[in-house]
Amino acid sequence: MIKVGLFGYGNLAKGVDCAIRQNPDMELKCIFTRRAPESVSPITAVPVYSADDVLSHKDEIDVLVMCGGSATDLPEQTPAMAEYFNVIDSFDTHKNIPTHFANVDAKAKKGNKVSIISVGWDPGMFSLNRLYADCILRDGADYTFWGKGVSQGHSDAIRRIEGVVDAKQYTIPVDEALESVRSGAQPNFTTRQKHTRECFVVVEEGADKARIEKEIVTMKNYFDEYDTTVHFISLEELRRDHSGIPHGGFVIRTGRTGKDLENNHVIEYSLKLDSNPEFTASVLVAYARAAYRMNQEGISGCKTVFDIPPAYLSDKSNQEIISTLL
Amino acid sequence: MIKVGLFGYGNLAKGVDCAIRQNPDMELKCIFTRRAPESVSPITAVPVYSADDVLSHKDEIDVLVMCGGSATDLPEQTPAMAEYFNVIDSFDTHKNIPTHFANVDAKAKKGNKVSIISVGWDPGMFSLNRLYADCILRDGADYTFWGKGVSQGHSDAIRRIEGVVDAKQYTIPVDEALESVRSGAQPNFTTRQKHTRECFVVVEEGADKARIEKEIVTMKNYFDEYDTTVHFISLEELRRDHSGIPHGGFVIRTGRTGKDLENNHVIEYSLKLDSNPEFTASVLVAYARAAYRMNQEGISGCKTVFDIPPAYLSDKSNQEIISTLL
Repeated sequence: MIKVGLFGYGNLAKGVDCAIRQNPDMELKCIFTRRAPESVSPITAVPVYSADDVLSHKDEIDVLVMCGGSATDLPEQTPAMAEYFNVIDSFDTHKNIPTHFANVDAKAKKGNKVSIISVGWDPGMFSLNRLYADCILRDGADYTFWGKGVSQGHSDAIRRIEGVVDAKQYTIPVDEALESVRSGAQPNFTTRQKHTRECFVVVEEGADKARIEKEIVTMKNYFDEYDTTVHFISLEELRRDHSGIPHGGFVIRTGRTGKDLENNHVIEYSLKLDSNPEFTASVLVAYARAAYRMNQEGISGCKTVFDIPPAYLSDKSNQEIISTLL
Repeated sequence: MIKVGLFGYGNLAKGVDCAIRQNPDMELKCIFTRRAPESVSPITAVPVYSADDVLSHKDEIDVLVMCGGSATDLPEQTPAMAEYFNVIDSFDTHKNIPTHFANVDAKAKKGNKVSIISVGWDPGMFSLNRLYADCILRDGADYTFWGKGVSQGHSDAIRRIEGVVDAKQYTIPVDEALESVRSGAQPNFTTRQKHTRECFVVVEEGADKARIEKEIVTMKNYFDEYDTTVHFISLEELRRDHSGIPHGGFVIRTGRTGKDLENNHVIEYSLKLDSNPEFTASVLVAYARAAYRMNQEGISGCKTVFDIPPAYLSDKSNQEIISTLL
């Protein structure tokens, strides 16, 4: 049994808790939190410890799954833990990945542990599909579309507007853009041509809806480059129809082969997810297995999904995956 | 520069010849054939040698791409070459893969070389997608659909019928079956429910079309379990409209996560290929790079796509793939 610890216990960690139950070779051993441990009620009944005590439990667990946020938690926490534990994180602040990688790599090598960073679906499975497709179709172009799904960052941005009680924002890929990519045309898109944004907003009684709508659709970096639709709804409607955290998207590469590049090919990978955090958690758990197994073989240092042989993710033997999946 | 040799020079090898031109770190060095060498006209002007002389050129090439057929060529040729060269093959007779693996592994280990077998899209990229999806969505079901594309085996079977001059057979996935899978329903299908078969047949003047059609649609193992449509066309029409070798297909896994498995997810990978052999060749070339690099690091033995870290397929540095594709 691979013994897993969780650092943090929000939506992502709850997903990891559930995912571990679906993997018979793994068990959730304990949870570390910066909140008061007694205030945390895990889905699986395991001990909850203060994050301050994590090092005293270091021999009890094989892999620590870091469940904090990318903005401020993971840049501190993952390097801090990488010396003492095999760790997995879902760090997704793209431009800071090289720095994060270097910080984690130094610590993991010092402690002879394996860290795998930026695991999930994007970065993660989408990255893998971009890489495989790029290696196969050399003369081509790739496109990533996100959605239909909830963007937490955009929903939060709307909630900060005066008069807004609550909000959910959906990112939606434009069908015509998807079809154009699939045709092999290798189009160039503006931001506006690839995605639209749809907002469901609950406002205070008597709030100025026209002003709020204008603040949303003109918001710099978030909405101004998109065609945005705003729907004002009641709190009841928001809770009834928009309580989920669905997401998904498409990675498509088209490219040409042949003596005169006369043949076109389309590689398409897509996800349609009812729960973004639970799916991300399921990917984290598979990579937790890989980190443990690689470390058992004496490997150390920071890795990404690009470095992991796919077989290391599976609980099945090599014979079994060859006979059932190859 | 990675120096590549080709063993055989049919459609697949021509595709490899073209694909190498799209990979600036690789060069085609020479071709080995069982035909008279002077009868082979390669797309890229390189020496053509008799297959009998292959061992005398062993120090000239880094990777040998085996381009024979799975029925009789590869089971003999790949093990015979695996001791002396890093080799890649596209062996696709599924039930014999374990035996082929063992034969190749023994030779590759003896010669301290790397072999990668069963490379292409199915087995190959489809296998990888089945594995990744199986590791992520544990409570689920996966489905592979092929087409729309030309099945050479089925086309050949029609050509063997008395009175048939030439024929092309397309395998076509049933749209309703695809939609049912995408819904998350995890349906069980009969063979007939997943694919249909469409045949374009040229017959001799005065041939008995009714008898030929009946022989096709009732042919055991090939057509009897499918809904098959037969179109009789002229040789001119066949050449004009059906000279390509397109193929493709879909790998879809749906599965559930969450405390009560209440959330459904769909992972879908699809290919739409103008040229089946050229796409397969492009995959072979990427894995040829990986075989060479792994062998340079001292690795030996037989591998499958499941064993290869994705980064080994790329001609880009780790820094570059992290910053551009992760």
